Amino acid sequence: MALKAISPQNAASLDKDLMEIGGWSLDQLMELAGLSVSQAVYRVHPPSSGKNVLVVCGPGNNGGDGLVAARHLAQYGYTPSVYYPKEGKNELYQRLKTQLNNLSVPFVSDFSSALKSTNLIIDAIFGFSFGGPLREPFPSIISEIESASVPVLSVDAPSSWDIEAGPPKEGPGAKFMPQTLVSLTAPKPCVKHFRGRHFLGGRFLTKAILEKYDLDCPQYEGIDQVVEVGVKGERL
Amino acid sequence: MALKAISPQNAASLDKDLMEIGGWSLDQLMELAGLSVSQAVYRVHPPSSGKNVLVVCGPGNNGGDGLVAARHLAQYGYTPSVYYPKEGKNELYQRLKTQLNNLSVPFVSDFSSALKSTNLIIDAIFGFSFGGPLREPFPSIISEIESASVPVLSVDAPSSWDIEAGPPKEGPGAKFMPQTLVSLTAPKPCVKHFRGRHFLGGRFLTKAILEKYDLDCPQYEGIDQVVEVGVKGERL
Repeated sequence: MALKAISPQNAASLDKDLMEIGGWSLDQLMELAGLSVSQAVYRVHPPSSGKNVLVVCGPGNNGGDGLVAARHLAQYGYTPSVYYPKEGKNELYQRLKTQLNNLSVPFVSDFSSALKSTNLIIDAIFGFSFGGPLREPFPSIISEIESASVPVLSVDAPSSWDIEAGPPKEGPGAKFMPQTLVSLTAPKPCVKHFRGRHFLGGRFLTKAILEKYDLDCPQYEGIDQVVEVGVKGERL
Repeated sequence: MALKAISPQNAASLDKDLMEIGGWSLDQLMELAGLSVSQAVYRVHPPSSGKNVLVVCGPGNNGGDGLVAARHLAQYGYTPSVYYPKEGKNELYQRLKTQLNNLSVPFVSDFSSALKSTNLIIDAIFGFSFGGPLREPFPSIISEIESASVPVLSVDAPSSWDIEAGPPKEGPGAKFMPQTLVSLTAPKPCVKHFRGRHFLGGRFLTKAILEKYDLDCPQYEGIDQVVEVGVKGERL
């Protein structure tokens, strides 16, 4: 199943449309994005495969999606912890943090040590708005994730990858290949370099939006908030 | 499985706690409440049982939950329509309306006629804050729902029922018994008069909240946002 990709410019414009024309708040969109990430986690890595999930959050909306996913994972019976070295300023992120604190989800400060005891990493560092270059502490974090022995699920795009061009030619991220990718609303162009299980989330687009941005309408099943759109080794 | 009920006063206080202490916005809470309603609908009335769903929305948050549920149902492949005779003033409700308009979900003005072609009614008229008496057009709407030949799913409480005492002794609602009830966060005291399939939704409470309000912690399965807590004929 081949799905059309959306450019980072169009992805930004689509988000703007959803909020300015579509009546959506960031709270609502992030709730459904994070929910879809949590459902993909449950699909590829059910609690029986290990409950410790380290959610690495960046300073923007990708990080916010990670915070929401962590909350749902806690409700599903996982034991998530969050590494959030550069907190976003939006008050929504602070509220999401409060929600996690109230569920006793720990915010860890020692990434390397947290990495040792996790069963899964969620990379919610950067999404479609990433323009590079990586700034500290992210180059070293990406390097550690890249060489980690546990599986990684990336939200929207593998962090450090150029959204159009894919993995950097050298340096942190050059060999980064997460096992799972959850594209939100539509795959980004860099997905052509991705080899792994690929899910799409964001079951809230309208026909008009799909047409305006020339996107495919994925066939979600039942009440699912994610749909698997590619399997290991298969080119989109 | 017997679940403790929460008084309407405590339900109001719990909502206030979630927003003032818990970091939750109404947008987030309503999104998850409406999502849980939509999942219960899918469980008791899958699209194969008929896709036409008439969502009857009241002026407050119960109506807002209905609007969110209608949106998710449209994404699941149902053909919902909404009857919303007294629109709430909160800007969130207007945004939820916009979202439904963009999905081409019709807002109907002739309730009796809409009733004739629906396969299921969602009663999202009044929730735990209902204090009576019913004001027009709701007495006649409740009477029509009460005598309708299609199944009814009520959100949080069967509308017209006193939240503590249950069905009114006479008049509209005196014989109202929906087939399904989705209690949000915790059952309300009137649930003791309910005979039907009973679900609980609102998978976002913390241990501290459950303890503060002396509530049971229901065992949700997997990634479900609802859990069935009672079956037809069984007293809670």
